[in-house]
Amino acid sequence: MSELSVNHLLGIKYLKEQDINLIFETADHFKEVINRPIKKVPSLRDITIANLFFENSTRTRLSFELAEKRLSADVINFSAASSSVKKGETLIDTVNNILSMKVDMVVMRHPNPGAGVFLSKHVNASIVNAGDGAHEHPTQALLDSYSIRERLGEVKGKKVVIVGDILHSRVALSNIFALKLQGAEVKVCGPKTLIPKYIEKLGVQVETNLKKALNWCDIANMLRVQNERMEISYFPSTREYTQQFGVNKEILNSLDKEIVIMHPGPINRGVEITSDVADSDQAIILDQVQNGVAVRMAVIYLLASKIKQ
Amino acid sequence: MSELSVNHLLGIKYLKEQDINLIFETADHFKEVINRPIKKVPSLRDITIANLFFENSTRTRLSFELAEKRLSADVINFSAASSSVKKGETLIDTVNNILSMKVDMVVMRHPNPGAGVFLSKHVNASIVNAGDGAHEHPTQALLDSYSIRERLGEVKGKKVVIVGDILHSRVALSNIFALKLQGAEVKVCGPKTLIPKYIEKLGVQVETNLKKALNWCDIANMLRVQNERMEISYFPSTREYTQQFGVNKEILNSLDKEIVIMHPGPINRGVEITSDVADSDQAIILDQVQNGVAVRMAVIYLLASKIKQ
Amino acid sequence: MSELSVNHLLGIKYLKEQDINLIFETADHFKEVINRPIKKVPSLRDITIANLFFENSTRTRLSFELAEKRLSADVINFSAASSSVKKGETLIDTVNNILSMKVDMVVMRHPNPGAGVFLSKHVNASIVNAGDGAHEHPTQALLDSYSIRERLGEVKGKKVVIVGDILHSRVALSNIFALKLQGAEVKVCGPKTLIPKYIEKLGVQVETNLKKALNWCDIANMLRVQNERMEISYFPSTREYTQQFGVNKEILNSLDKEIVIMHPGPINRGVEITSDVADSDQAIILDQVQNGVAVRMAVIYLLASKIKQ
Repeated sequence: MSELSVNHLLGIKYLKEQDINLIFETADHFKEVINRPIKKVPSLRDITIANLFFENSTRTRLSFELAEKRLSADVINFSAASSSVKKGETLIDTVNNILSMKVDMVVMRHPNPGAGVFLSKHVNASIVNAGDGAHEHPTQALLDSYSIRERLGEVKGKKVVIVGDILHSRVALSNIFALKLQGAEVKVCGPKTLIPKYIEKLGVQVETNLKKALNWCDIANMLRVQNERMEISYFPSTREYTQQFGVNKEILNSLDKEIVIMHPGPINRGVEITSDVADSDQAIILDQVQNGVAVRMAVIYLLASKIKQ
Repeated sequence: MSELSVNHLLGIKYLKEQDINLIFETADHFKEVINRPIKKVPSLRDITIANLFFENSTRTRLSFELAEKRLSADVINFSAASSSVKKGETLIDTVNNILSMKVDMVVMRHPNPGAGVFLSKHVNASIVNAGDGAHEHPTQALLDSYSIRERLGEVKGKKVVIVGDILHSRVALSNIFALKLQGAEVKVCGPKTLIPKYIEKLGVQVETNLKKALNWCDIANMLRVQNERMEISYFPSTREYTQQFGVNKEILNSLDKEIVIMHPGPINRGVEITSDVADSDQAIILDQVQNGVAVRMAVIYLLASKIKQ
Repeated sequence: MSELSVNHLLGIKYLKEQDINLIFETADHFKEVINRPIKKVPSLRDITIANLFFENSTRTRLSFELAEKRLSADVINFSAASSSVKKGETLIDTVNNILSMKVDMVVMRHPNPGAGVFLSKHVNASIVNAGDGAHEHPTQALLDSYSIRERLGEVKGKKVVIVGDILHSRVALSNIFALKLQGAEVKVCGPKTLIPKYIEKLGVQVETNLKKALNWCDIANMLRVQNERMEISYFPSTREYTQQFGVNKEILNSLDKEIVIMHPGPINRGVEITSDVADSDQAIILDQVQNGVAVRMAVIYLLASKIKQ
């Protein structure tokens, strides 16, 4: 297969396994590019991309922006804070206006689940979902799987535990879809109040004991604790969360094997992960960030080649 | 004529008819450029442009920024929110500082009427007015006329009604100047409290009955209702505004002919215009947006060629 | 000497005199470049620079951004307002994340003194300090000395008085280091409450009488009055500050000679400096701004050539 089965990247649940393989093979090439002195290719000189961020997200926006610039695309940035969205304009009108300026692709972060899917049905451009509420964050899941593949050779057959607030996490959901599609085994681990009821229907097991979960897995993906949310309603306190679900060197040393530690960032050092773990060789957190640029270059490149047909 | 009669674009009232013709012929070329796969020309590689937005305006800023980048100019963006303006610096000092960094052209949106005119007398750079208070928004009027010319062949002799809050609208004023200069007939239609007393001195007739206005015109330019302002002091309610001055399919179908519908955006669907009208073939709202990039490329290109002399 | 003795520009106090000479000779070349029609060189096509501004600073950010773009570097901008810093991430984690995206150099403005020094010990990138609290603002001091050299031939042996709030000023401190290193004589002048006790240990004399200070000097560098801070606690009122420490034409005319007036901007006209002085030929305020771009190009170019080795 030499092209994606989709015209948009709205969520992992719309992809086939071959799509992921194609993205990873393409990302291998771009990873080599961004490690050259001149980290650019002229591939998308004929593409204009708008980054529409209706929610703040510095790291995701920077990663996309670098990916786009290294493909030589023209880039315009739009953030909701200063936008006509406030003036009562609909999302479709906002996007159609931008597209009328001859924009080919839209990378969108939006607080509402399904915003990207909705938009893809109503506008004439390729849409990349950069996070839509608690729904999906597909490029994060792709870079996570890519980083597992890079570290452990392949994703198939690997045992992955996702630890934390599963209920509110688009990272968790996209990871579950991506890992299952590639033949990995997935467990989630966290406070019962933060694990959605439907999770087992996705073929995912729940393990509320962190040590058991870690002893089972090859890779632990530690989600970020969102302090504000946590303390108010779902869990007694951040300190108690850390005691039960935080990863530290002591617990890792007590395991039978060395597992790989992932984190989507930004890290709360001393909350979901201690500094000695975050900075150890077991952790591939910064590899994830680096791979994010290569994977996003691959996604944009492959979607753009469908536009050009 | 192969060059503009002005060194700045401060308002339509400073232009001659030949200036508008030259801008439109140049925009025809750039419209063809932005519909190519590679939407760029290298014309202004030697020009640095600063976009100074002392008021938020996502769509106008994006349109200018794309126009500048497609001309290969170097672009820097400056917004008042994070600026030294807050620190008590004068406008002239702010702009002179930026110009000292070897900037050739300033595109400025400012809340005060006449800010661009004032600046053009005190600094050594080409100034493009991207909206100054309730005064003028010349590129909007140019793209509006360009869109009329594109749809109906020419502006001369056409009958245009501008509907809405004429009193506070720089779009209305710049359109009136542009349309009269090109030999169109212009009426305004809206609540009496929102029509300035001096309007008839501009050779513009007032028609407070929307249906009569529409029956007379070839084109209706529907201004945006600014909800905040309207309800507080100038008109009973948005709902009553819509009943008297909103355009819907029913009223359009009751006319003897098919008129063209324009809107400068952002649209309040269901207020000044219903969705079926906004999305119909009669409406050229998204053509206006697309033409905005080409017209702004033309304005910038023509002003830059005067700098280079 | 053809390379800097440092890998970062953290403060003037880490430089040798030869470093400053090398920066100035390199800036001479770039000043010539930015006065050409095409103000760009392709030197840093292989360098990606992140501008991290944890404090607002329009003019410094624009100057750096133009310097970077005119060297053809790839540029990404990051401002704290919309950043994950708010989410409790450490500075090192934030920067390491950005560096993992294959960024080579970081230009950082930070409210905390020593933030750049701290960072340079913990991350693997070249750091340029664009102002760290009340500590240093080295590129400002370099452009100030470069402007003195341009106007008066050399810095060595010149008498410079820095007037204003010395206590809170990184501009003052960096200037003192730079001027002393180059063999200039330095006095400070201002309210006693705004002059730090350690100042004489730096080889700097204090003069609280403005007229005496001006009669002594060749150059007066007028610092900006920060109204908020001043009135509350350190000085009776802005008006009284102006009476004692403001420069006007009258006082300048009463001197035996014509001195050069500098100001780092933004100016409070009528407070630390009157308009007739700011706009006179004695003032080199806009030269400072222009030289800022050339000096920053030189600093970035020289640091980048150390990265490439």
